[in-house]
Amino acid sequence: MHQVFDVALEVNLLHANQEGADHNRRHFDQWGITCLNLMSSPGSGKTALLEKTLAALANELKIAVIEGDMTTELDADRLRQYNVPVIAINTGRSCHLDSKMVAGGIHQFADRYNPAEFDLVLVENVGNLVCPAEFEVGEHAKVALLSITEGEDKPLKYPVMFQEADCLLITKMDLAPYLDFDLDKIVANVRQMNSQATIIPISTKTGEGLKLWFDWLRQVRAPKSAEARQFEQLV
Amino acid sequence: MHQVFDVALEVNLLHANQEGADHNRRHFDQWGITCLNLMSSPGSGKTALLEKTLAALANELKIAVIEGDMTTELDADRLRQYNVPVIAINTGRSCHLDSKMVAGGIHQFADRYNPAEFDLVLVENVGNLVCPAEFEVGEHAKVALLSITEGEDKPLKYPVMFQEADCLLITKMDLAPYLDFDLDKIVANVRQMNSQATIIPISTKTGEGLKLWFDWLRQVRAPKSAEARQFEQLV
Repeated sequence: MHQVFDVALEVNLLHANQEGADHNRRHFDQWGITCLNLMSSPGSGKTALLEKTLAALANELKIAVIEGDMTTELDADRLRQYNVPVIAINTGRSCHLDSKMVAGGIHQFADRYNPAEFDLVLVENVGNLVCPAEFEVGEHAKVALLSITEGEDKPLKYPVMFQEADCLLITKMDLAPYLDFDLDKIVANVRQMNSQATIIPISTKTGEGLKLWFDWLRQVRAPKSAEARQFEQLV
Repeated sequence: MHQVFDVALEVNLLHANQEGADHNRRHFDQWGITCLNLMSSPGSGKTALLEKTLAALANELKIAVIEGDMTTELDADRLRQYNVPVIAINTGRSCHLDSKMVAGGIHQFADRYNPAEFDLVLVENVGNLVCPAEFEVGEHAKVALLSITEGEDKPLKYPVMFQEADCLLITKMDLAPYLDFDLDKIVANVRQMNSQATIIPISTKTGEGLKLWFDWLRQVRAPKSAEARQFEQLV
């Protein structure tokens, strides 16, 4: 969040974003979709995680991706190879997705597909450990990723992201032998910020922890509501 | 930059920041100080680089640090061990340093020390590959860091930072044997954004490239102007 604005303006901005996020979430609820917002620094492994997730769960869950990037469709193109709907949003100079941008993505998605057939929408946010944490996009849960190469101190230095996360994935565990790195210290620092979040150390290279991540996904996915089932039959 | 504001407001905001940056730079020029703004994602190695730089150049250049972090003085405390002035700025929820925050730091620095005795002020920005690139703080040159763990595609996906950089340090080269990583590809991607920047691959663990970085620092440091020498004699 840029602090140079006056407080009233900041409050208005976040309030308008929140209203948009609530609107988006009502759409997801109506369709029986669980939406997750994946956030991290650049290069912590969000796209690699999505690749593994799409490959593993394609036959079990019907998944769509909303892919946020400042420029390029490089990540979106990587994910399109998994034959799932990938809606790309270029944010231009903006450092995060906001609920209005995601609303645009949702409308594209609903125009092209029957959303009530889907179980999960995974939103990959712009790589940024600060701003995305303040802008809800309509998600039911927030997933933060922290690569072990970033250092154990990051939960203390970038507190908002770690306070907001429902699930924290500690990524690139395969590099542990080559780093001065203390997993217990990262976990202790996360716990100072957040006593509740599920914490899962993973590696998309060795597969470490991915089964736990898939189980978390299965558990967080809302069962289709009666309303959503009815909607599915109608369309 | 948050895009949800209207364009006129964005222009005003950046204009006010620029005026403040010019003001800060005039102070530095008067004192014969070269100011550098170090920017990168969280955990790319800015603080480790400063540690090596302070240790190596302490007898040759008089250096002060302005240390920006959202919360904590963890990095500032690491650098204070090198017996240089370290001014800590906590940005709170803000995702970058702006020129007004740095002006506060400069005034603290000038109150406690004789600034005309100094050669270099190194500003360590908040870890964020997006927003800091848009907010000048009064620097004479911008230094961006990109860790090889972040991936070769980052210059294309986060273009503003790479367009703005005068020097790009490709960090954590010691991890190259353990990654699928192509240095030529990173360099080619940087060159798509920026044909001029000095590019130096480094490792603070093995020392690779640090001599080139120190040489770059020596070269970018402005010789004391006549005005600054006079000011130094007066105070």
